[in-house]
Amino acid sequence: MKKSMWEAGATVMAFAALALSACGPQAPVGKAQKLFGMTEATSPDGNIKLTFGITEGDSVPTYALSYGTHQVVKTSRLGLDIKIKGGKPTDNLTHGFELADVKRGSLDETWAPVWGEEDSIRNNYNELTVSLRQPSSGKVMDVCFRLYDDGLGFRYMFPEQDGLTYFTVRDEKTEFAMSGDHTAWWISGDYDTQEYDYTESRLSEIRSLSPTARQENSSQTAISPTAVQTSLQMKTDSGLYINIHEAALVDYSCMSLDLDDKNLVFKAALTPNAVGDMARIQTPCKTPWRTVMVTDDARKTLASRLILNLNDPCAYDDVSWIKPVKYMGVWWEMITGKGQWSYTNDFKSIHVGESDYAHAKPHGKHSANNENVKRYIDFAAKNGMDQLLIEGWNIGWEDWFGFEKDYVFDFVTPYPDFDVKGLNAYAKSKGIRLMMHHETSGSIRNYERHMDAAYKFMVDNGYNAVKSGYVGNIVTAGEHHYGQWAVNHYLYAVKKAADYHICVNAHEAIRPTGLCRTYPNLIGNESARGTEYESFGGNKPFHTCCLPFTRLQGGPMDYTPGILDTRMSFLEGEHSHVNTTLCKQLALYVTMYSPLQMAADLPESYEKYADAFQFIKDVAIDWQKSVYLEAEPGHFITIARKEKGGDDWFVGSITGYDEREATVDFSFLDPGVKYTATIYRDGEDASYNEKPDSYKIETQTVDSSTVLKIKCAKSGGFAISVKK
Amino acid sequence: MKKSMWEAGATVMAFAALALSACGPQAPVGKAQKLFGMTEATSPDGNIKLTFGITEGDSVPTYALSYGTHQVVKTSRLGLDIKIKGGKPTDNLTHGFELADVKRGSLDETWAPVWGEEDSIRNNYNELTVSLRQPSSGKVMDVCFRLYDDGLGFRYMFPEQDGLTYFTVRDEKTEFAMSGDHTAWWISGDYDTQEYDYTESRLSEIRSLSPTARQENSSQTAISPTAVQTSLQMKTDSGLYINIHEAALVDYSCMSLDLDDKNLVFKAALTPNAVGDMARIQTPCKTPWRTVMVTDDARKTLASRLILNLNDPCAYDDVSWIKPVKYMGVWWEMITGKGQWSYTNDFKSIHVGESDYAHAKPHGKHSANNENVKRYIDFAAKNGMDQLLIEGWNIGWEDWFGFEKDYVFDFVTPYPDFDVKGLNAYAKSKGIRLMMHHETSGSIRNYERHMDAAYKFMVDNGYNAVKSGYVGNIVTAGEHHYGQWAVNHYLYAVKKAADYHICVNAHEAIRPTGLCRTYPNLIGNESARGTEYESFGGNKPFHTCCLPFTRLQGGPMDYTPGILDTRMSFLEGEHSHVNTTLCKQLALYVTMYSPLQMAADLPESYEKYADAFQFIKDVAIDWQKSVYLEAEPGHFITIARKEKGGDDWFVGSITGYDEREATVDFSFLDPGVKYTATIYRDGEDASYNEKPDSYKIETQTVDSSTVLKIKCAKSGGFAISVKK
Repeated sequence: MKKSMWEAGATVMAFAALALSACGPQAPVGKAQKLFGMTEATSPDGNIKLTFGITEGDSVPTYALSYGTHQVVKTSRLGLDIKIKGGKPTDNLTHGFELADVKRGSLDETWAPVWGEEDSIRNNYNELTVSLRQPSSGKVMDVCFRLYDDGLGFRYMFPEQDGLTYFTVRDEKTEFAMSGDHTAWWISGDYDTQEYDYTESRLSEIRSLSPTARQENSSQTAISPTAVQTSLQMKTDSGLYINIHEAALVDYSCMSLDLDDKNLVFKAALTPNAVGDMARIQTPCKTPWRTVMVTDDARKTLASRLILNLNDPCAYDDVSWIKPVKYMGVWWEMITGKGQWSYTNDFKSIHVGESDYAHAKPHGKHSANNENVKRYIDFAAKNGMDQLLIEGWNIGWEDWFGFEKDYVFDFVTPYPDFDVKGLNAYAKSKGIRLMMHHETSGSIRNYERHMDAAYKFMVDNGYNAVKSGYVGNIVTAGEHHYGQWAVNHYLYAVKKAADYHICVNAHEAIRPTGLCRTYPNLIGNESARGTEYESFGGNKPFHTCCLPFTRLQGGPMDYTPGILDTRMSFLEGEHSHVNTTLCKQLALYVTMYSPLQMAADLPESYEKYADAFQFIKDVAIDWQKSVYLEAEPGHFITIARKEKGGDDWFVGSITGYDEREATVDFSFLDPGVKYTATIYRDGEDASYNEKPDSYKIETQTVDSSTVLKIKCAKSGGFAISVKK
Repeated sequence: MKKSMWEAGATVMAFAALALSACGPQAPVGKAQKLFGMTEATSPDGNIKLTFGITEGDSVPTYALSYGTHQVVKTSRLGLDIKIKGGKPTDNLTHGFELADVKRGSLDETWAPVWGEEDSIRNNYNELTVSLRQPSSGKVMDVCFRLYDDGLGFRYMFPEQDGLTYFTVRDEKTEFAMSGDHTAWWISGDYDTQEYDYTESRLSEIRSLSPTARQENSSQTAISPTAVQTSLQMKTDSGLYINIHEAALVDYSCMSLDLDDKNLVFKAALTPNAVGDMARIQTPCKTPWRTVMVTDDARKTLASRLILNLNDPCAYDDVSWIKPVKYMGVWWEMITGKGQWSYTNDFKSIHVGESDYAHAKPHGKHSANNENVKRYIDFAAKNGMDQLLIEGWNIGWEDWFGFEKDYVFDFVTPYPDFDVKGLNAYAKSKGIRLMMHHETSGSIRNYERHMDAAYKFMVDNGYNAVKSGYVGNIVTAGEHHYGQWAVNHYLYAVKKAADYHICVNAHEAIRPTGLCRTYPNLIGNESARGTEYESFGGNKPFHTCCLPFTRLQGGPMDYTPGILDTRMSFLEGEHSHVNTTLCKQLALYVTMYSPLQMAADLPESYEKYADAFQFIKDVAIDWQKSVYLEAEPGHFITIARKEKGGDDWFVGSITGYDEREATVDFSFLDPGVKYTATIYRDGEDASYNEKPDSYKIETQTVDSSTVLKIKCAKSGGFAISVKK
């Protein structure tokens, strides 16, 4: 069903005055400044209103957003500082504009994602495009606003025109002026990593909390003491949930938000390239969408498809080769230090193609060896997994990190104790596939040089999915993980993978902005602090109560849940432990949506907790429908999801720091039908830090009239499988 | 024949004192400073002497070079400023050294180049390797010196060792302290171009002449007012010819020379990357060789094989596919503005793969069209050419330059009026090949992304040679044409081309350093001001009297001579003209050695001067033997060469600004044999600016006793074919 109506007529509002507060130190839009050329647009339900206007005097374009009677974004600046080769020092797209034209349109369609939280998504918006002209230069810039019932998306569009063909963005001036000192769930702004713990605080507290909000990472570049990353979740004192992010980040640099904490105005902070420029543009061109989601209920925030809807439809004709994947990995044993990625201690450093591994002495801790991998294959196949990831299979891991080494891996040469053909054949005989691993060590040029051969090697050996990684600094001097140069690469890798029918799960790459709608072989990303940090010192107990509001807005995360031995009792000595209960680990398979779900623990851990492991084996990874039962950022999430192509439901509920009693109202079930619910719940004495593995498994019959109250321990939760 | 003798014994000279003058502002080695750990080595003929020593006090390693009784390089600093990730601020390889070991060796071998100025090259040197240890850090750095009868090569070698595995070169401290205010033939130091006119001046005059020595270029970054490029040719007042260059530049940045003009000390000026670092090193590693050639006769400088000898032997087992090439091109007509590379004016800018060329209106000046190309094919085939280059055959030329555009070309899509298959078939039917053209516009990442497909496209369509280009700024922000990142790329392109049996002629790439010995499919480079500049305003009349002493020391240049219509009379209106006589253009085929020689003019020009064109058709492009008859940098060169696999000789003689009478002593001919010499000489009234096409063609019999005196006009010359 596609219903599209485009209105050609322009509706320019008459000159109007509006009292405004200041909006930022970068040349404030002005207190009590008059606007002209004002025009408005509303969401389909009429509740969200966008006001566009141009300031008097310096003629700066602005926008403001309201939700019912609430001001969401106060009048805020639009525009970009630019430079044009051979142009004038005065070239800009920041001020001196007049409103040349206004176009309106609307769309109401539904579309079916290849995989997702539901099998059908409604895309319903009203659109307002203002065409802005600089009389002094003749330049034209359009701003397209799309109003949804749950928020706003807007983007700059640069039509093809004389005098604006190629240009460089020096600074994007977009502002988001907040109406109050909201509570925010934020991570520190950075050009190279998103792997920070979240902080819950007032906006005005960000500056003072910033130093403690930054944990050490393999590559990190701070932006400012008040910069935070998107998607940024906020809550107003009046109970509105506001989320700022971006959608469809293609060939542009990533936007962070720099807060003017006197005036509570966020300003776009793009990621610079090696010479400090933010983006290079060729017209016609559209920037990514800047999004402001706003709801009056946190559950609606989780249910929002704003980011996906703002992305283009699927770019591939054939998507039959793209499948959700449940997998295990030869991974957690290296993350915890039980095993190693590397093979030998014989070399001071590795020269790929020259270092003689065949005659090197193994150090004995190499996990990706034939015997161990076969053990994993046996276990994964027996327990219904689709694939087995093996990291550390290829030569180069002895000195792969931290040296900004160009030729660090070749992606095709296995260690002597890893038989590529034999192990793939063995896996195939057991009915599963191996999953490829391409760690790039940030050496993007090297990866691109080997990419075709590496993908071809995968196809030749039966792999159809790759976990790629970009640990450490980007090796090309001066470039950042989130700059245009790297952003361009990540999508290049995904599109080229599609040529080989390969699905990509990129870690340490740019955080997702809904591009999985267009390129659904991008089945996963990391781009946040994942489960691995539970072994590196721990994630905050409320971490996964933040992620679905923030990181997951852009697309699925390969969070790698399922650590049932949360104490890592297989390790000797002191070490960190997972900051959840065992049951919360199970619940994550439902609350952390992903078409790629890992059962991250060791086989021996799953054998130890075989009854609990049953949920991981059972849980679906692709969904017909999702029902968001309870939600509050940082505090709790309860979601029920119905599997695609089946009748089973799965429920997950998690809590943060605090104990709480969750309520599961089963009214989502087919009326009049009896279901068997298997409930995996925290034990009475369970807590993430004291008794993580206190749990109970109970079975009971439920129907659409059932309402269950279930207690969640501190950083606890429960999972329920509901079968007809 | 290979005679190798390696002596293991160390010969450390006893402590000795030496009076020294200051050598540079960077912490002078010291006046009257004492050296210890002194050790010496001499050339096989004993005439050149290298003295190594370490300064007292700060223990800086130094070297000095003498030629007979002449001081060539006064005591000069060695070493590198480095930084090590996780290391100490005091990390350095500049001082605090002790002499730990000395090794000596020698080699006398001959080897046969795949192509060259002669078919057999003697490689005869004595070697001294000093092993330097920093007691304070335990670090070890070796310096290997090779003494030839015509000069010195030395390189830093970093053995694999604890504490020095990966490091960054912040600055190379190598100095070349001159003993006097020599005359130099120099071009201005630059990180992005070598396309400057030469200046002849005293070293002390470089600073004042520097502003006028820099002409506009599509990409240029000045180093300093006294920086010059290598190879730098000098002449002392006592008549020594000194040349400083480097050999085997692999995965390191290009060295220029920054002159301390108070003390006449050159210091190595490496090319920085985007963050100002000069090179990233992984041990074990060797830097390029720094070379100081010294002779008492300019002819010996031209005859030197120092740079080739310092490179590694051929890396390929099979070289049967590498052939010298004589070619014409659909090129000069675009260079002169008669035709264009582009096809249409329909687009404001090009989006490769999206812009609809099929429906675009041709602007009518596109030279690479089927009809015109066929005309060239006919002419080239009829006149014995091997190949025909066609530039502007592929889409993207409408806005290819100056925008730092990433996806600028795809290297496989022809313009609508260029039938790749049809034209290749037509060429094949006429017995010649087409030559591919890959302009990258400095977008190195884009070229690497398309390289495999582009090379495969060549093979599939019958091409076996490519002219590549790197016009404009390197698109990866902050990188330079001569930095390590780009240097790494150029060789990557050559090595990958070899996989496809493709020969490479790279323009605007790094200037050659003898790598064609190791990778002989690198059959040409530009890396200097070529004939194209004769159409862009002109080259100085003495330009080609400089190049064989400078640019050509590193390898052949695709100078593209053969412009017989030096006035470009086919053009209307005012325009520059070629600053040579017609006969000098012919002589360049002998004096500018290259296995790749273009007949650069238009077919109609060759028809106009058909008798003179005969020499271009006749002249060989691969040689058994070369005899350097007369030479003085910037002033005159006379060379006789015997073709490989034949008995014919070809003689070329050129002069610079001044008229002169050249002497050709034919004693190089087989004794007692009569030869027919066809002499293409300037007319009596010829001059490059007034009467360039005044010429005479004379035939006479010569034998080994013949001595001819032939007058060369201003910027004139002559060519002689000598047939048995």
